[in-house]
Amino acid sequence: MIGGGQLARMMVPPAIELGIDLQVLAEVDGSSAAIAATAVGDYTDAATVLGFARGVDVITFDHEHVPQPVLAALLDAGHLVRPGPGALAVAQDKILMRERLTALGAPVPDWAAVRDAGALAAFLAEHGGRAVVKTPRGGYDGKGVRVVGSASEADDWLAGAGPEGLLIEELVPFRRELAQLVARRPSGEVRAWPLVETVQRDGVCAEVTAPAPEAGALTGAARALAERIATELDVTGVLAVELFETPDGRLLVNELAMRPHNTGHWTIDGAVTSQFEQHLRAVLDLPLGDPSPTAPWSVMVNVLGGPADGAMPSRYPAALASDAGVKVHSYGKPSRPGRKVGHVTATGAALDDTAARARAAAGFFQA
Amino acid sequence: MIGGGQLARMMVPPAIELGIDLQVLAEVDGSSAAIAATAVGDYTDAATVLGFARGVDVITFDHEHVPQPVLAALLDAGHLVRPGPGALAVAQDKILMRERLTALGAPVPDWAAVRDAGALAAFLAEHGGRAVVKTPRGGYDGKGVRVVGSASEADDWLAGAGPEGLLIEELVPFRRELAQLVARRPSGEVRAWPLVETVQRDGVCAEVTAPAPEAGALTGAARALAERIATELDVTGVLAVELFETPDGRLLVNELAMRPHNTGHWTIDGAVTSQFEQHLRAVLDLPLGDPSPTAPWSVMVNVLGGPADGAMPSRYPAALASDAGVKVHSYGKPSRPGRKVGHVTATGAALDDTAARARAAAGFFQA
Repeated sequence: MIGGGQLARMMVPPAIELGIDLQVLAEVDGSSAAIAATAVGDYTDAATVLGFARGVDVITFDHEHVPQPVLAALLDAGHLVRPGPGALAVAQDKILMRERLTALGAPVPDWAAVRDAGALAAFLAEHGGRAVVKTPRGGYDGKGVRVVGSASEADDWLAGAGPEGLLIEELVPFRRELAQLVARRPSGEVRAWPLVETVQRDGVCAEVTAPAPEAGALTGAARALAERIATELDVTGVLAVELFETPDGRLLVNELAMRPHNTGHWTIDGAVTSQFEQHLRAVLDLPLGDPSPTAPWSVMVNVLGGPADGAMPSRYPAALASDAGVKVHSYGKPSRPGRKVGHVTATGAALDDTAARARAAAGFFQA
Repeated sequence: MIGGGQLARMMVPPAIELGIDLQVLAEVDGSSAAIAATAVGDYTDAATVLGFARGVDVITFDHEHVPQPVLAALLDAGHLVRPGPGALAVAQDKILMRERLTALGAPVPDWAAVRDAGALAAFLAEHGGRAVVKTPRGGYDGKGVRVVGSASEADDWLAGAGPEGLLIEELVPFRRELAQLVARRPSGEVRAWPLVETVQRDGVCAEVTAPAPEAGALTGAARALAERIATELDVTGVLAVELFETPDGRLLVNELAMRPHNTGHWTIDGAVTSQFEQHLRAVLDLPLGDPSPTAPWSVMVNVLGGPADGAMPSRYPAALASDAGVKVHSYGKPSRPGRKVGHVTATGAALDDTAARARAAAGFFQA
């Protein structure tokens, strides 16, 4: 696995249980996935990545940022790369993502690629005067995303943009955000977890409810959509489809990620097969596991920032005493404002109670 | 953790999730718990163990075999040892175990410590001519246990026995075997998993059903008994109480173990808090987790020996395709006749179906 963040870290437990030798190329010493880090180096350097690849059977990722020339070098050297460069390109470039989704007939917000202030102003004029501007590459957790009301508000980004320009999208007046996760293996088998509802704060995932309450027909529609996207884009591993539900009950695709995703962390404690185990199975082309939930409701709440006075474990005496059933996950990171340092998941038979328990437990790790 | 076997290995996933730095003193390079092995050395050597202990906050164990003088040296040097030497002594010496249980008034088979053939023959004569002889120390998985019909059948063991002699016990005509696992933290909090039924083959745990079917009043009795033993013996961490159910519905204590136990492996996939997470919480004196089952039935089947043609993962394509819901655990060991190389757990709403699924999945890894 290239990348030593918390997604790599959370892949280690199922790798241990299944007896799969997971090796990680981490960015730095002491990464979140340090226990499995067999190499430390720059994932944008082809020689580093090729050296790491020689010791493994298949390469996968905990982020989308490995450059295409490095991916091409891996393929040229005969390595298995899952998901492959063609699929990853769609997750790496938001303009390409919009082009491919549009070509597939997938429902997306109105969008355009804009290369100058004039085009940006024209889009704004056609969409009520406000829109979302995104840098096509490198954004995550709200970075590289800006709501603008005039072309001048994106001047800095336009000046720094490449030939493809910036992505501009209509500001969708969504009722709520949803996410549909599926996993696909090279043989074509696809398995879907239940559709979930997500709450974002400042562009960062804050809370996930599984399954999405009162989703009705959206459940089947989201699943069919994600399965089709996974198949058409030839995704291997977990595909996360972030969705808007519009006030009139339609789904629009917001973003795609081709790796385990924050909106799937609840599966560790709330599904027969977690997204991390499933990703491993998928990239090894093993039969996929049952993604069924193990409880009527699961609610995951992120721990953002973490305790002011130390890492998460310093609060365990109080947090664990308050609720014996909540599952606490710490990513082994020092606290820092806004940083994802862990999450908690509660499962239960009643949604209100389950959500209250998850929020209360997460609260022990704030400030 | 002293010891690098599969119990140490299975402690790693919850340690990662909780962000607890688990360090292992393994016996050999390439142990089952190699991913967390920060030291390799002889656990009977005080200097080795003391050197390892200097880097950790609390010492615990994946087996009972650390000698008392080494444990005493750890205490003398100011280290926290959980469970403590006094409790561990009872798990290390089966005669001491019988003495302590008898003094507590816990129900046990008739027993005696025998130092010569005459005493052994006398016990046989009083118990129908057949009995179980056990070496007081070092036995596990059926080793150090022998059913005899005459004193001469234990001559070799008597010749090699220490001053305490051998343990001899009545051959209990049990209806079935059960196990009650509890966990206790230093503050005194105790939590109990459901009573389980176990099937042993050749002295080795083969299958566990949770909860024990049709246990009736035994459920409460086993729980109260295990909680009392844990408290009276001042156990920290997981205590496993292996039990016989007699034909007339009584419980007799067979063995004690003060660590995670094969009869609790089902908790990884079938309980809110696994025995491995609970042991970590207990030895760190953190509040204990909810031991409730997450499914009506869990059945665990050991993989003994393993595939003739390789390690367990070589059979994953067939095994995982046959049942998407079964959870497979491989201990990263090469196959060897009789060796515990892994286990599988199935959970479900109907016992017969759940057991059939677990047995079928385990079958993929045999021969």
